[in-house]
Amino acid sequence: MPLEIERKFLVRDGWPRNTGGEPYRQGYLKQSGDPPTIRVRRAGDLAFLTIKSQPAGLVRDEYEYQIPANHAEEMLGSLCHHPLIEKVRHKVPHAGVVWEIDEFQGVNAGLVMAEVELHDPDQPFEKPDWIGAEVTGDPRYSNSALSRHPYTTWVEAD
Amino acid sequence: MPLEIERKFLVRDGWPRNTGGEPYRQGYLKQSGDPPTIRVRRAGDLAFLTIKSQPAGLVRDEYEYQIPANHAEEMLGSLCHHPLIEKVRHKVPHAGVVWEIDEFQGVNAGLVMAEVELHDPDQPFEKPDWIGAEVTGDPRYSNSALSRHPYTTWVEAD
Repeated sequence: MPLEIERKFLVRDGWPRNTGGEPYRQGYLKQSGDPPTIRVRRAGDLAFLTIKSQPAGLVRDEYEYQIPANHAEEMLGSLCHHPLIEKVRHKVPHAGVVWEIDEFQGVNAGLVMAEVELHDPDQPFEKPDWIGAEVTGDPRYSNSALSRHPYTTWVEAD
Repeated sequence: MPLEIERKFLVRDGWPRNTGGEPYRQGYLKQSGDPPTIRVRRAGDLAFLTIKSQPAGLVRDEYEYQIPANHAEEMLGSLCHHPLIEKVRHKVPHAGVVWEIDEFQGVNAGLVMAEVELHDPDQPFEKPDWIGAEVTGDPRYSNSALSRHPYTTWVEAD
Protein backbone atom coordinates (compact mmCIF):
# COMPACT_ATOMS: atom_id res chain seq x y z
CA MET A 1 0.00 0.00 0.00
CA PRO A 2 1.57 3.34 -1.04
CA LEU A 3 1.71 5.56 2.05
CA GLU A 4 2.26 9.27 2.45
CA ILE A 5 3.70 10.38 5.79
CA GLU A 6 4.25 14.10 5.99
CA ARG A 7 4.33 17.09 8.31
CA LYS A 8 3.36 20.55 7.22
CA PHE A 9 4.44 23.96 8.52
CA LEU A 10 3.94 27.63 7.84
CA VAL A 11 7.04 29.36 6.52
CA ARG A 12 8.56 32.54 7.96
CA ASP A 13 10.20 35.36 6.08
CA GLY A 14 13.76 34.59 5.12
CA TRP A 15 13.15 31.22 3.48
CA PRO A 16 15.49 30.40 0.58
CA ARG A 17 13.38 31.66 -2.34
CA ASN A 18 16.21 31.55 -4.86
CA THR A 19 15.96 27.87 -5.65
CA GLY A 20 14.23 28.03 -9.02
CA GLY A 21 10.83 26.61 -8.25
CA GLU A 22 8.52 24.65 -10.51
CA PRO A 23 5.01 25.91 -11.32
CA TYR A 24 2.19 23.66 -10.09
CA ARG A 25 -1.47 23.94 -11.06
CA GLN A 26 -3.96 21.57 -9.52
CA GLY A 27 -7.63 21.00 -8.92
CA TYR A 28 -9.98 18.51 -7.33
CA LEU A 29 -12.60 16.28 -8.95
CA LYS A 30 -15.02 16.47 -6.02
CA GLN A 31 -16.90 19.49 -4.78
CA SER A 32 -16.98 18.21 -1.22
CA GLY A 33 -13.89 17.97 0.91
CA ASP A 34 -14.80 14.48 2.11
CA PRO A 35 -12.07 11.93 1.55
CA PRO A 36 -10.82 10.43 -0.63
CA THR A 37 -9.52 13.53 -2.40
CA ILE A 38 -8.95 13.15 -6.12
CA ARG A 39 -6.42 15.61 -7.47
CA VAL A 40 -5.41 16.54 -11.01
CA ARG A 41 -1.99 18.22 -11.07
CA ARG A 42 0.22 19.86 -13.65
CA ALA A 43 3.80 19.95 -12.36
CA GLY A 44 5.95 21.69 -14.95
CA ASP A 45 5.56 19.63 -18.15
CA LEU A 46 4.15 16.59 -16.37
CA ALA A 47 0.68 15.70 -15.13
CA PHE A 48 -0.61 13.38 -12.44
CA LEU A 49 -3.85 11.99 -11.06
CA THR A 50 -3.64 11.35 -7.32
CA ILE A 51 -6.04 9.74 -4.87
CA LYS A 52 -5.53 10.27 -1.15
CA SER A 53 -7.42 8.63 1.68
CA GLN A 54 -8.54 10.18 4.94
CA PRO A 55 -5.38 10.75 7.04
CA ALA A 56 -4.90 8.64 10.16
CA GLY A 57 -2.56 10.83 12.17
CA LEU A 58 0.34 11.72 9.86
CA VAL A 59 -0.28 8.78 7.53
CA ARG A 60 -2.57 8.37 4.52
CA ASP A 61 -2.79 6.13 1.50
CA GLU A 62 -1.71 7.85 -1.69
CA TYR A 63 -2.13 6.47 -5.20
CA GLU A 64 -0.50 8.55 -7.91
CA TYR A 65 -0.54 7.98 -11.67
CA GLN A 66 1.11 9.97 -14.41
CA ILE A 67 -1.41 10.94 -17.08
CA PRO A 68 -1.17 12.78 -20.43
CA ALA A 69 -0.79 16.53 -19.95
CA ASN A 70 -3.65 17.28 -22.36
CA HIS A 71 -6.02 15.09 -20.33
CA ALA A 72 -5.02 16.99 -17.18
CA GLU A 73 -5.57 20.34 -18.88
CA GLU A 74 -9.04 19.27 -20.01
CA MET A 75 -9.97 17.98 -16.56
CA LEU A 76 -8.60 21.12 -14.87
CA GLY A 77 -10.61 23.23 -17.27
CA SER A 78 -13.96 21.47 -17.21
CA LEU A 79 -14.20 18.84 -14.44
CA CYS A 80 -12.32 20.29 -11.45
CA HIS A 81 -13.69 22.60 -8.82
CA HIS A 82 -12.60 26.21 -9.44
CA PRO A 83 -10.61 28.27 -8.50
CA LEU A 84 -7.62 26.03 -9.09
CA ILE A 85 -4.63 25.93 -6.76
CA GLU A 86 -1.64 27.71 -8.28
CA LYS A 87 1.72 27.65 -6.57
CA VAL A 88 5.44 27.45 -7.13
CA ARG A 89 7.15 24.51 -5.49
CA HIS A 90 10.71 24.90 -4.26
CA LYS A 91 12.69 21.88 -3.07
CA VAL A 92 15.23 22.68 -0.37
CA PRO A 93 17.48 19.97 1.07
CA HIS A 94 18.33 20.55 4.73
CA ALA A 95 20.03 18.20 7.19
CA GLY A 96 19.20 14.99 5.35
CA VAL A 97 15.60 15.70 4.39
CA VAL A 98 14.06 17.65 1.50
CA TRP A 99 11.68 20.47 2.34
CA GLU A 100 9.04 21.17 -0.27
CA ILE A 101 8.13 24.84 0.00
CA ASP A 102 4.89 25.89 -1.68
CA GLU A 103 4.62 29.57 -2.52
CA PHE A 104 0.94 30.00 -3.30
CA GLN A 105 -0.33 32.35 -5.98
CA GLY A 106 -3.66 33.61 -7.31
CA VAL A 107 -6.48 33.36 -4.75
CA ASN A 108 -4.06 31.90 -2.19
CA ALA A 109 -1.30 34.50 -2.65
CA GLY A 110 0.49 35.34 0.58
CA LEU A 111 0.49 31.79 1.91
CA VAL A 112 3.80 29.90 2.04
CA MET A 113 3.86 26.39 3.46
CA ALA A 114 6.55 23.74 3.74
CA GLU A 115 6.16 19.98 3.90
CA VAL A 116 8.62 17.29 4.79
CA GLU A 117 7.97 13.71 3.75
CA LEU A 118 9.05 11.10 6.29
CA HIS A 119 9.68 7.36 6.22
CA ASP A 120 8.13 6.90 9.63
CA PRO A 121 5.77 9.07 11.69
CA ASP A 122 8.35 9.18 14.52
CA GLN A 123 11.32 10.07 12.30
CA PRO A 124 13.24 12.97 13.88
CA PHE A 125 14.24 15.89 11.66
CA GLU A 126 15.81 19.29 12.13
CA LYS A 127 13.72 22.37 11.47
CA PRO A 128 15.40 25.22 9.60
CA ASP A 129 15.08 28.72 11.16
CA TRP A 130 12.48 29.73 8.58
CA ILE A 131 10.04 27.00 9.61
CA GLY A 132 7.09 28.39 11.60
CA ALA A 133 4.02 26.90 13.24
CA GLU A 134 3.07 23.31 12.44
CA VAL A 135 -0.26 22.95 10.59
CA THR A 136 -0.23 19.18 10.00
CA GLY A 137 -3.82 17.98 10.23
CA ASP A 138 -5.30 21.49 10.29
CA PRO A 139 -8.07 21.08 7.73
CA ARG A 140 -7.92 24.73 6.59
CA TYR A 141 -4.45 24.22 5.19
CA SER A 142 -5.10 21.21 2.98
CA ASN A 143 -4.83 22.15 -0.69
CA SER A 144 -8.29 20.73 -1.24
CA ALA A 145 -9.69 23.09 1.43
CA LEU A 146 -7.70 26.01 -0.01
CA SER A 147 -9.44 25.46 -3.34
CA ARG A 148 -12.82 25.84 -1.63
CA HIS A 149 -11.84 28.50 0.94
CA PRO A 150 -8.88 30.39 -0.53
CA TYR A 151 -6.41 32.06 1.81
CA THR A 152 -7.14 35.56 0.50
CA THR A 153 -10.79 35.18 1.64
CA TRP A 154 -9.90 34.24 5.22
CA VAL A 155 -10.95 36.77 7.82
CA GLU A 156 -8.40 37.47 10.53
CA ALA A 157 -9.69 36.06 13.80
CA ASP A 158 -7.73 38.48 16.00
CA MET B 1 -10.56 14.77 -25.94
CA PRO B 2 -11.44 11.08 -25.33
CA LEU B 3 -15.19 10.70 -25.88
CA GLU B 4 -17.60 7.96 -24.97
CA ILE B 5 -20.70 7.70 -27.15
CA GLU B 6 -22.96 4.86 -26.16
CA ARG B 7 -26.54 3.67 -26.04
CA LYS B 8 -27.85 1.37 -23.37
CA PHE B 9 -30.74 -1.12 -23.41
CA LEU B 10 -32.41 -3.66 -21.22
CA VAL B 11 -31.91 -7.22 -22.40
CA ARG B 12 -34.71 -9.75 -22.97
CA ASP B 13 -34.63 -13.47 -22.29
CA GLY B 14 -32.90 -15.41 -25.01
CA TRP B 15 -29.71 -13.35 -25.17
CA PRO B 16 -26.58 -15.35 -26.11
CA ARG B 17 -25.31 -16.18 -22.62
CA ASN B 18 -22.82 -18.81 -23.80
CA THR B 19 -20.07 -16.41 -24.78
CA GLY B 20 -17.70 -16.90 -21.83
CA GLY B 21 -17.98 -13.61 -20.03
CA GLU B 22 -15.36 -11.79 -18.01
CA PRO B 23 -15.95 -10.96 -14.32
CA TYR B 24 -16.02 -7.23 -13.53
CA ARG B 25 -15.93 -5.68 -10.07
CA GLN B 26 -16.13 -1.94 -9.73
CA GLY B 27 -16.80 0.86 -7.30
CA TYR B 28 -16.95 4.64 -7.14
CA LEU B 29 -14.72 7.06 -5.25
CA LYS B 30 -17.52 9.53 -4.52
CA GLN B 31 -20.53 9.03 -2.31
CA SER B 32 -22.65 11.40 -4.35
CA GLY B 33 -23.76 10.65 -7.85
CA ASP B 34 -22.83 14.11 -9.09
CA PRO B 35 -20.50 14.09 -12.07
CA PRO B 36 -17.72 13.53 -12.71
CA THR B 37 -17.91 9.87 -11.72
CA ILE B 38 -14.64 8.26 -10.71
CA ARG B 39 -14.64 4.52 -11.12
CA VAL B 40 -12.20 1.83 -9.98
CA ARG B 41 -12.66 -1.38 -11.99
CA ARG B 42 -11.24 -4.87 -11.95
CA ALA B 43 -11.80 -6.50 -15.34
CA GLY B 44 -10.44 -10.02 -15.19
CA ASP B 45 -6.75 -9.67 -14.32
CA LEU B 46 -6.60 -5.98 -15.23
CA ALA B 47 -7.56 -2.82 -13.37
CA PHE B 48 -8.55 0.66 -14.48
CA LEU B 49 -9.29 4.08 -13.06
CA THR B 50 -11.87 5.94 -15.13
CA ILE B 51 -13.23 9.48 -14.96
CA LYS B 52 -16.44 10.32 -16.79
CA SER B 53 -18.02 13.73 -17.20
CA GLN B 54 -21.70 14.63 -17.11
CA PRO B 55 -23.23 13.25 -20.31
CA ALA B 56 -24.43 15.72 -22.94
CA GLY B 57 -26.96 13.63 -24.80
CA LEU B 58 -25.22 10.39 -25.73
CA VAL B 59 -21.74 11.85 -25.40
CA ARG B 60 -19.43 12.25 -22.42
CA ASP B 61 -15.73 12.72 -21.82
CA GLU B 62 -14.05 9.58 -20.58
CA TYR B 63 -10.49 9.36 -19.26
CA GLU B 64 -9.31 5.84 -18.52
CA TYR B 65 -5.98 4.72 -17.07
CA GLN B 66 -4.71 1.24 -16.37
CA ILE B 67 -3.53 0.93 -12.77
CA PRO B 68 -1.90 -1.86 -10.74
CA ALA B 69 -4.42 -4.53 -9.71
CA ASN B 70 -3.34 -4.37 -6.07
CA HIS B 71 -4.02 -0.60 -5.97
CA ALA B 72 -7.49 -1.25 -7.38
CA GLU B 73 -8.17 -3.96 -4.82
CA GLU B 74 -7.14 -1.65 -1.98
CA MET B 75 -9.28 1.21 -3.30
CA LEU B 76 -12.26 -1.10 -3.86
CA GLY B 77 -11.85 -2.38 -0.32
CA SER B 78 -11.36 0.83 1.60
CA LEU B 79 -12.06 3.95 -0.50
CA CYS B 80 -15.03 3.06 -2.72
CA HIS B 81 -18.68 3.31 -1.83
CA HIS B 82 -20.13 -0.11 -0.98
CA PRO B 83 -21.81 -2.32 -2.13
CA LEU B 84 -19.60 -2.75 -5.18
CA ILE B 85 -20.97 -3.47 -8.63
CA GLU B 86 -20.38 -7.09 -9.62
CA LYS B 87 -21.24 -8.32 -13.07
CA VAL B 88 -20.14 -10.57 -15.89
CA ARG B 89 -19.49 -8.83 -19.18
CA HIS B 90 -20.19 -10.69 -22.40
CA LYS B 91 -19.07 -9.23 -25.74
CA VAL B 92 -21.34 -10.16 -28.62
CA PRO B 93 -20.56 -8.98 -32.17
CA HIS B 94 -23.69 -8.39 -34.22
CA ALA B 95 -24.06 -6.73 -37.63
CA GLY B 96 -20.82 -4.75 -37.45
CA VAL B 97 -20.98 -3.52 -33.86
CA VAL B 98 -20.03 -5.18 -30.56
CA TRP B 99 -22.71 -5.42 -27.89
CA GLU B 100 -21.43 -5.45 -24.33
CA ILE B 101 -23.92 -7.39 -22.24
CA ASP B 102 -23.64 -6.92 -18.48
CA GLU B 103 -25.17 -9.68 -16.39
CA PHE B 104 -25.33 -8.17 -12.95
CA GLN B 105 -24.76 -10.16 -9.80
CA GLY B 106 -24.90 -9.64 -6.04
CA VAL B 107 -27.20 -6.78 -5.01
CA ASN B 108 -28.05 -6.12 -8.68
CA ALA B 109 -28.79 -9.74 -9.62
CA GLY B 110 -31.63 -10.05 -12.12
CA LEU B 111 -30.60 -7.02 -14.16
CA VAL B 112 -29.13 -7.57 -17.61
CA MET B 113 -28.19 -4.56 -19.73
CA ALA B 114 -26.49 -4.15 -23.08
CA GLU B 115 -24.45 -1.23 -24.37
CA VAL B 116 -23.25 -0.42 -27.81
CA GLU B 117 -20.41 2.04 -28.28
CA LEU B 118 -20.74 4.29 -31.33
CA HIS B 119 -18.39 6.50 -33.32
CA ASP B 120 -21.06 9.13 -33.80
CA PRO B 121 -24.33 9.84 -31.95
CA ASP B 122 -26.27 9.41 -35.21
CA GLN B 123 -24.59 6.15 -36.24
CA PRO B 124 -27.27 3.63 -37.29
CA PHE B 125 -27.09 0.09 -35.91
CA GLU B 126 -29.22 -3.00 -35.99
CA LYS B 127 -30.82 -4.21 -32.77
CA PRO B 128 -30.76 -7.95 -32.14
CA ASP B 129 -34.07 -9.58 -31.14
CA TRP B 130 -33.01 -9.84 -27.50
CA ILE B 131 -32.57 -6.05 -27.13
CA GLY B 132 -35.40 -4.51 -25.10
CA ALA B 133 -36.26 -0.99 -23.97
CA GLU B 134 -33.67 1.74 -24.31
CA VAL B 135 -32.46 3.20 -20.99
CA THR B 136 -29.78 5.58 -22.30
CA GLY B 137 -29.78 8.59 -20.01
CA ASP B 138 -32.10 7.02 -17.42
CA PRO B 139 -30.22 7.89 -14.23
CA ARG B 140 -31.41 4.76 -12.37
CA TYR B 141 -29.50 2.51 -14.74
CA SER B 142 -26.07 4.10 -14.47
CA ASN B 143 -23.66 1.77 -12.69
CA SER B 144 -22.88 4.57 -10.26
CA ALA B 145 -26.58 4.82 -9.35
CA LEU B 146 -26.86 1.02 -9.12
CA SER B 147 -24.12 1.05 -6.48
CA ARG B 148 -26.20 3.46 -4.38
CA HIS B 149 -29.67 2.09 -5.21
CA PRO B 150 -29.17 -1.56 -6.17
CA TYR B 151 -31.66 -3.23 -8.49
CA THR B 152 -32.77 -5.78 -5.88
CA THR B 153 -33.97 -2.93 -3.62
CA TRP B 154 -36.17 -1.31 -6.29
CA VAL B 155 -39.88 -1.39 -5.56
CA GLU B 156 -42.09 -2.29 -8.51
CA ALA B 157 -44.09 0.75 -9.49
CA ASP B 158 -46.94 -1.27 -10.95
